[in-house]
Amino acid sequence: MDRIAEFRKWKVQCLSKADLSRKGSVDEDVVELVRFLNMQDQFFTTSSCAGRILLLDGGINGFEVQKQNCCWLLVTHKPCIKDDVIVALKKANGDATLKFEPFVLHVQCRQLQDAQILHSVAIDSGFRNSGITVGKRGKTMLAVRSTHGLEVPLSHKGKLMVTEEYIDFLLNVANQKMEENKKRIERFYNCLQHALERESMTNLHPKIKEKNNSSYTHKKQRNQEKACGQCITKENDKEPENDDDDLGINITIFPEDY
Amino acid sequence: MDRIAEFRKWKVQCLSKADLSRKGSVDEDVVELVRFLNMQDQFFTTSSCAGRILLLDGGINGFEVQKQNCCWLLVTHKPCIKDDVIVALKKANGDATLKFEPFVLHVQCRQLQDAQILHSVAIDSGFRNSGITVGKRGKTMLAVRSTHGLEVPLSHKGKLMVTEEYIDFLLNVANQKMEENKKRIERFYNCLQHALERESMTNLHPKIKEKNNSSYTHKKQRNQEKACGQCITKENDKEPENDDDDLGINITIFPEDY
Repeated sequence: MDRIAEFRKWKVQCLSKADLSRKGSVDEDVVELVRFLNMQDQFFTTSSCAGRILLLDGGINGFEVQKQNCCWLLVTHKPCIKDDVIVALKKANGDATLKFEPFVLHVQCRQLQDAQILHSVAIDSGFRNSGITVGKRGKTMLAVRSTHGLEVPLSHKGKLMVTEEYIDFLLNVANQKMEENKKRIERFYNCLQHALERESMTNLHPKIKEKNNSSYTHKKQRNQEKACGQCITKENDKEPENDDDDLGINITIFPEDY
Repeated sequence: MDRIAEFRKWKVQCLSKADLSRKGSVDEDVVELVRFLNMQDQFFTTSSCAGRILLLDGGINGFEVQKQNCCWLLVTHKPCIKDDVIVALKKANGDATLKFEPFVLHVQCRQLQDAQILHSVAIDSGFRNSGITVGKRGKTMLAVRSTHGLEVPLSHKGKLMVTEEYIDFLLNVANQKMEENKKRIERFYNCLQHALERESMTNLHPKIKEKNNSSYTHKKQRNQEKACGQCITKENDKEPENDDDDLGINITIFPEDY
């Protein structure tokens, strides 16, 4: 079977299977994006989470319980208020931790070139921890990941260690992160549509493609994507992140734009 | 210039440049690993951080200051005690946040196949957010990233919001994460050496390579890597993580081992 036929077979198999997640359905905030990706010949999604606030009851020091087995005291894809967390915390026996987990998306791609386009869109939309995986049999996946997290221990052996005022402040931070995360998803969806339109245009007119292969045009394309993302650089820079630009250590600037 | 010659040129350029990081040198815990990678024809490192505990003084709600410009009240690559943090917090004017940032490494690879080997080693060593980037001109990078984080707001407008007892507990968690992070780096280094030995063996004896291309042998190889990583699965499972296996939402298991 050739690669394209094999990809089609995988896509049919994958999309026809039951959703094995706890929730059993795609999150509201990414339904349209996921549907759009699955409508494209070159992509299909294998997992997604729009972003959520989670309260987990883990083992002592958060180290001794598997995520699959630990108790989810609270999970929400919407902004969260203090009272919800206070009520949920009453059920904690171990070390409860509040987490904000940003948007995550896994997309299987027909070929490396398709993954490269999606990766470029993801990076330009602010999902700077995104990356490609190429399996030994050629399966090519893109994982869209953000650097945007929050992980805060709240109780130890069931005993709350922080004040209600602190929880209130913390949820304010978490809700702002959720808001910013939502903007990035929208930006990703917009940039993706633009990038695929541009790609189909260049496929229809190979001369444009040839022109686009110059590094000058690539930089221009990036800027266009940034423009469609509405001041991405400015918005991204607002938050301190564990990003590639400032590891603080042993950084060597690439000799050329890669 | 062919791809291999171009890669060599990049490597020489990159490694001869000054280290532009704040620290200006490679972290002690990864010096050997970085040196080993740079000795290989197919790799060179462009940035690294062994993992660190950071106390940042950000803008209000941690949103309004760029990481580059925000004040680093404390940074350490060693376990940290409460008093260090208490002293450093006295200098906070905005919203101070304590972070644990795990090992990060960027490696430029000669070709996709080299990045795939490194990626496989990274995943098998517990760095599950690792991913490949392929630039438009063919530059192939692997980013080694962990899911292992901690990000905790401590003060608001310079006012401490938590107790000293809480900071003590938090540092205990952060120090444990640092310890686990160190184990993963060692595992990565061991697995990498094994994988490259195996690769050079199969290059010397193409018949083995042919045999190794069966999916059966690939699974076996993975297990060997896991074995050299000393119970990686068990150790990994200790901590709840935002990993690919349990997004909680819209997960479809791959039809085949990819």
